[in-house]
Amino acid sequence: MGLINHVFGADSLKKLYPSNLGIGHTRYSTSGISELQNCQPFVVETLHGKIAVAHNGELTNASRLRKKVMKHGVGLSTSSDSELITQLLAFTPPLENDDTADWVARIKNLMRETPTSYSLLIMHKDIIYAVRDPYGNRPLCIGRLIPVGDMNGKGKDNSETEGWVVSSESCSFLSIGAEYYREVLPGEIVKISRHDVQTLDVVQRSEGDPSAFCIFEYVYFARPDSIFEGQMVYSVRKRCGQQLAIEAPVEADLVSTVPESATPAALGYAQKCGLPYVEVLCKNRYVGRTFIQPNMRLRQLGVAKKFGVLSDNFKGKRVVIIDDSIVRGNTISPIIKLLRESGAKEVHIRVASPPIRFPCYMGINIPTKEELIANRPEFHDLANYIGADSVVYLSVEGLVSSVQESIKARQENNPKNQKAFIGKLGHCTACLTGDYPVELEW
Amino acid sequence: MGLINHVFGADSLKKLYPSNLGIGHTRYSTSGISELQNCQPFVVETLHGKIAVAHNGELTNASRLRKKVMKHGVGLSTSSDSELITQLLAFTPPLENDDTADWVARIKNLMRETPTSYSLLIMHKDIIYAVRDPYGNRPLCIGRLIPVGDMNGKGKDNSETEGWVVSSESCSFLSIGAEYYREVLPGEIVKISRHDVQTLDVVQRSEGDPSAFCIFEYVYFARPDSIFEGQMVYSVRKRCGQQLAIEAPVEADLVSTVPESATPAALGYAQKCGLPYVEVLCKNRYVGRTFIQPNMRLRQLGVAKKFGVLSDNFKGKRVVIIDDSIVRGNTISPIIKLLRESGAKEVHIRVASPPIRFPCYMGINIPTKEELIANRPEFHDLANYIGADSVVYLSVEGLVSSVQESIKARQENNPKNQKAFIGKLGHCTACLTGDYPVELEW
Amino acid sequence: MGLINHVFGADSLKKLYPSNLGIGHTRYSTSGISELQNCQPFVVETLHGKIAVAHNGELTNASRLRKKVMKHGVGLSTSSDSELITQLLAFTPPLENDDTADWVARIKNLMRETPTSYSLLIMHKDIIYAVRDPYGNRPLCIGRLIPVGDMNGKGKDNSETEGWVVSSESCSFLSIGAEYYREVLPGEIVKISRHDVQTLDVVQRSEGDPSAFCIFEYVYFARPDSIFEGQMVYSVRKRCGQQLAIEAPVEADLVSTVPESATPAALGYAQKCGLPYVEVLCKNRYVGRTFIQPNMRLRQLGVAKKFGVLSDNFKGKRVVIIDDSIVRGNTISPIIKLLRESGAKEVHIRVASPPIRFPCYMGINIPTKEELIANRPEFHDLANYIGADSVVYLSVEGLVSSVQESIKARQENNPKNQKAFIGKLGHCTACLTGDYPVELEW
Amino acid sequence: MGLINHVFGADSLKKLYPSNLGIGHTRYSTSGISELQNCQPFVVETLHGKIAVAHNGELTNASRLRKKVMKHGVGLSTSSDSELITQLLAFTPPLENDDTADWVARIKNLMRETPTSYSLLIMHKDIIYAVRDPYGNRPLCIGRLIPVGDMNGKGKDNSETEGWVVSSESCSFLSIGAEYYREVLPGEIVKISRHDVQTLDVVQRSEGDPSAFCIFEYVYFARPDSIFEGQMVYSVRKRCGQQLAIEAPVEADLVSTVPESATPAALGYAQKCGLPYVEVLCKNRYVGRTFIQPNMRLRQLGVAKKFGVLSDNFKGKRVVIIDDSIVRGNTISPIIKLLRESGAKEVHIRVASPPIRFPCYMGINIPTKEELIANRPEFHDLANYIGADSVVYLSVEGLVSSVQESIKARQENNPKNQKAFIGKLGHCTACLTGDYPVELEW
Repeated sequence: MGLINHVFGADSLKKLYPSNLGIGHTRYSTSGISELQNCQPFVVETLHGKIAVAHNGELTNASRLRKKVMKHGVGLSTSSDSELITQLLAFTPPLENDDTADWVARIKNLMRETPTSYSLLIMHKDIIYAVRDPYGNRPLCIGRLIPVGDMNGKGKDNSETEGWVVSSESCSFLSIGAEYYREVLPGEIVKISRHDVQTLDVVQRSEGDPSAFCIFEYVYFARPDSIFEGQMVYSVRKRCGQQLAIEAPVEADLVSTVPESATPAALGYAQKCGLPYVEVLCKNRYVGRTFIQPNMRLRQLGVAKKFGVLSDNFKGKRVVIIDDSIVRGNTISPIIKLLRESGAKEVHIRVASPPIRFPCYMGINIPTKEELIANRPEFHDLANYIGADSVVYLSVEGLVSSVQESIKARQENNPKNQKAFIGKLGHCTACLTGDYPVELEW
Repeated sequence: MGLINHVFGADSLKKLYPSNLGIGHTRYSTSGISELQNCQPFVVETLHGKIAVAHNGELTNASRLRKKVMKHGVGLSTSSDSELITQLLAFTPPLENDDTADWVARIKNLMRETPTSYSLLIMHKDIIYAVRDPYGNRPLCIGRLIPVGDMNGKGKDNSETEGWVVSSESCSFLSIGAEYYREVLPGEIVKISRHDVQTLDVVQRSEGDPSAFCIFEYVYFARPDSIFEGQMVYSVRKRCGQQLAIEAPVEADLVSTVPESATPAALGYAQKCGLPYVEVLCKNRYVGRTFIQPNMRLRQLGVAKKFGVLSDNFKGKRVVIIDDSIVRGNTISPIIKLLRESGAKEVHIRVASPPIRFPCYMGINIPTKEELIANRPEFHDLANYIGADSVVYLSVEGLVSSVQESIKARQENNPKNQKAFIGKLGHCTACLTGDYPVELEW
Repeated sequence: MGLINHVFGADSLKKLYPSNLGIGHTRYSTSGISELQNCQPFVVETLHGKIAVAHNGELTNASRLRKKVMKHGVGLSTSSDSELITQLLAFTPPLENDDTADWVARIKNLMRETPTSYSLLIMHKDIIYAVRDPYGNRPLCIGRLIPVGDMNGKGKDNSETEGWVVSSESCSFLSIGAEYYREVLPGEIVKISRHDVQTLDVVQRSEGDPSAFCIFEYVYFARPDSIFEGQMVYSVRKRCGQQLAIEAPVEADLVSTVPESATPAALGYAQKCGLPYVEVLCKNRYVGRTFIQPNMRLRQLGVAKKFGVLSDNFKGKRVVIIDDSIVRGNTISPIIKLLRESGAKEVHIRVASPPIRFPCYMGINIPTKEELIANRPEFHDLANYIGADSVVYLSVEGLVSSVQESIKARQENNPKNQKAFIGKLGHCTACLTGDYPVELEW
Repeated sequence: MGLINHVFGADSLKKLYPSNLGIGHTRYSTSGISELQNCQPFVVETLHGKIAVAHNGELTNASRLRKKVMKHGVGLSTSSDSELITQLLAFTPPLENDDTADWVARIKNLMRETPTSYSLLIMHKDIIYAVRDPYGNRPLCIGRLIPVGDMNGKGKDNSETEGWVVSSESCSFLSIGAEYYREVLPGEIVKISRHDVQTLDVVQRSEGDPSAFCIFEYVYFARPDSIFEGQMVYSVRKRCGQQLAIEAPVEADLVSTVPESATPAALGYAQKCGLPYVEVLCKNRYVGRTFIQPNMRLRQLGVAKKFGVLSDNFKGKRVVIIDDSIVRGNTISPIIKLLRESGAKEVHIRVASPPIRFPCYMGINIPTKEELIANRPEFHDLANYIGADSVVYLSVEGLVSSVQESIKARQENNPKNQKAFIGKLGHCTACLTGDYPVELEW
């Protein structure tokens, strides 16, 4: 429990040195309480040896599956749907004879039992299976470890590979000396052994059903240098800012941002409008990310302590602030107040994503419907409520086109491209539109 | 993980205040490695609610049962046979309909599956089941919480009861303001609710088969003020000392002890011989018990640091040292050396229990056969090996009669007494004789 | 010892609640080893009550003063020059009668004993003395606590004051609900009581000697929203970038920065050149500041893990990177390599400060002369050594004018302005030029 | 701060391996609060190098000395009189020239400044000075480290010595492989270098003034195997029990003890009376010593949890309980209640020391006068108050004769014996009689 730096000191890492494969998980728990028992990977002994399972996502039919597993007589020791997956892999009938287990058959059976959302790593003996659900809802990608001595080398002449890494986000590869190799495709089961990466099967949705990668990864969660579906997250965010400038221009003196996740959108907006990009706030170092803090009081304190004001940069000016999202509305409000009290003449808010209105059941910890500003009466007079001169969100269509534009361009240029995606292109916009890609169960 | 005082601080106990029932376990792990995952109680959710299981003992057929459980498709997350019991309780067929579970039937089924050894507490909703295996191998007894305000009151006029506690050893009751109520009998299933204690069933061994309570609890493990089978452990140890004086008298000036577990036997021996009881060693405070320390090096250091020498008490005298047991022979040896170097004229060792020769598969962590002094060549010349003038162990018969004497007397006086034991009287002496009360499986 | 968040938990802060004054210090030790004993404030009991002393800076004549104090018979319990100051305050002769102490006389005596560098807080009973050395080498400023309920209010109609805070950097005020009041002037002794701030004396250098505020605070250490000498640090850094664009323009496609301290300079440079400002790197969250890490190995790892690459933003482009300083040269080199390998066509480095060549003896932990890149042979061919297409530093004159320009303007406009500085304007540029403002002693 | 086992782990001890001398202190603080700053040894740098000082005892004129030191201009960083000693050693005038310091002169000067109580270890470079005040109030003795390989060897043929150890109590020697060498005499200054122990001087009280070794060390504090003034503490305690049997016999069936410090007295009492010695209570392992716990509530809980009852041993019997001291009267009371409720017919209390009536100003943490049972009205009817059938304390004369009897015998046999004590034999009985051996100052 705790931050990785505290949990894994030099001593505990040293114990792992003789090993040559392993899986782990930095769980930011969504389903199931944040408890020691819910720590991943789940490891169980089966008739055919130990398996370890790390799971990113959330099963939409977890409740029914729990009953099924317990009805079979399995006592579940946690509230986690990741333990559920582990036990499903252990008992999935028909059980084979005592000598061998067909893990691929078991994984495919699991995929029939539950549609989404899961990106999985399953370790058994010297094999790791990387699995992404048929909707492709959660990201998963593969990196290649480059031989030491050329740590940042692009490796044109590096036919050799030191090993493989799998991660939700490609941005993690650089800092361990690996390079991006490719995405695990929606529905794909990849078998990774010491020197080899091999597609075992691809479980597809019905013909014509689009995939449903979470659009919120682009908007908020992913690090800007991560690559999804062949494009850099930063570029998508910048396009969102440009699109926002088209949809909602404003007469102002300067464009700025709430540092630092909205900076690409702000630069895109400023460029498109022809207004100067200027910094109005600086980050107070050593204060964590707002979204991740666990309760309201801490979140408010967090906002108060989070920024310094660069008042000389905007005194007497009309300011456009680009934010990446307004979820509850209690972060932006004190910022606007701060800017006005420090001399801003006008403060206009432009949000580089549409309002969140619906809960996510597929792995993102979105506040309750009642907490979402878009579902509250104040939303009808939002500018007034947050104290802004104006506030406009990006449209859903604007977001979707910013995300899909360059993918489609690539598809048209190279219709045979099967590496970047599979099946019909689509994204899950459920939290914005309420259109869930899968029927929900309780 | 760790000592109770460190693990349960004021804060963690405060969280338990609103509760009115609970179970726990200070596991001194015998089967299964000492790991966080093996911490008890095991808690799992079943179709019929959560159950929590605390287990003292060790299953003699654990290996076969593990296979059976895994073959049913349950992934086991630990190496502990206590998890095994928990999962067996969760899936024991035939499973009932979805609405209710017959826990007593499940417990009885478990008792059919595995003969020994287990003393169990099983918690489900507002009920705790206390279960002792049909051999009665591990102890289990019930205490009654006396209303506050009369903490040490014997409660003649206390018809009221504040609650119930169950423990392996009755000595724990006093310090929490409870009084000894009775033993859970071999094979008994007791249901404990808020104000009531009720025998649900008694699962017996075949007609005429004796019970098999661990005789080593009397010899070494139990605290002297604990009560087993109606008698105080201290009294049994004192009788062992008296019996030893009969079996192995010695011409000497004084009788002493290795503090402090052998003191009752030493006092019994001294009284029977008519020799003065004198202290020759004093304990070095803050040093833990030898048996419990995990490796050889620490154990040796422990001995060296464990005692002070009261040389004025025995200079120039012939000393009889009563020890409770000689297991490996490496504890007594430096003590004898210490006494001689501090002026003892002769040092005779009398051991108030027979030599341990065989491993225990029922819950006691006895060293390997090779480590046991009784199985080593040095045993044939033990006095010489440990540096004593003479060394004699108590006979098995002497031990058994010291343990059973007063129970038999009580039985004869009161042949209807069904509270103190059930079936034919017997004790497990397997570690001394190799006669295991149950067929062992691997 | 450790980060403030870890050291001061809720519990330890709660103990301070009933108090109404206090001092503290986040020591990033420069003189004296980083040990528990060196933790500030130093608290000693004197004949006239306890004093507590917090010290930012480093005494240039510490060695001679230690001898003097020890010769008087004082045993020093640490290697810290802050303890030295404390003991000097305790024994400074002539000692007064037993009844009272003239703390101001003692402070002035201390200031005669040692010229620089020190910003001090001295607490005695219900008074805090804030003292800045006559050179004004280290910063010190005063904030005013605004009544709760209007936490961010500028307080036009707030005649009331809740209390006073003193800090090295004004940026700390906002996050605790205080507002900037004024600087402590070079040589000033300020007495702070509950509701009052009062200048007791100003100890000046000789007529005509300039003050010597550390110019490196502007370049690197201070947070950009801090105010020194009446100007915002951010504005100074931006002017440095503009000046750099005049001194060292370059034909390129885009201007960028090593996030995030060089961003103001980069925006200034880009604006002056008319080139677009673009992000090429993103920060890897949760990785601390390079300068602060204690050894070479960790520093190198730190660089490797510190950034993500936004390659789509600069592939095939000529990039100008603005850095705030190049100290050892081992941070920028892997960044340039990273950019080239990710597709940059050219990489030009422009440094918004002059090269550091000399050690600081006044409180800044600068690497040894041998470690400084400017003193190494590689410096003559620096572009080649770090792998850049070109590299140019800002001139000392350029830096000084960027720092002094607006102060001088203010002075000319308002020659009576005595609040922002005192005596002749000057800055310590010793680490750049070797011109130490005070004679050094060993 | 904390128990030694927790504070000094393997890692921190490893750092000390290359060293060949050192001093330490397990401070159970009496004067000065229990704070990190008061941890010993105190280490300060002086003009002539570092000195480290460990101090057992308490200065009776600390208050005047503090003023004197502070008047000289030394700021004291703690409330500890041990820091005072350290600073006195650092500045004691006349200070010598810069090159050398006469530490013996400084120590003797310190001894003139303050009469008692202190046993000191002073480390400077490769020398340790062991010093005991002229009253000999606190114990101090020297042990000899025996070459490894013959750890418990008496070493007749061991002319070699591996090193020297100094300790308050000789009992500590055995567990580190050292043997008792001799006491540091009252007023003696011993210089210990690597292979040599040398008396530098003996500072005596005025002619005919007796020494004043704390009699409470015999009664309560010391471990029974420690040697003071040539006799084993255990033997003194046993004699106290015998003397008590003469002074206060009782018609009873058995003699017992509150384990375990009163056991020697109980065995002495039983032997003298001709009554059997029987155990009535057993210790609950893992519960610390009552005296050492810091507040009333914890102390009461401590009593409740401290013992188990061996009721079979005394049911229906008349019991004499020997206790070593009754200080507050709240420990014995619940024990008597416990024994009666468990079946004792009568409970008589005999206390093997006189009542404590006065505070100690020389290093023992005795409760306030008001807390002492001997000063409370209940003392007049103590048996009734604590619930005993009778209670009698040992007389002061009885205690003194038990302590001095064998020393006097030795003196008579060997009038030249100068090793065991010096000057006139005497003991401090101030806490019992109010006769303080030194005039007290405040």
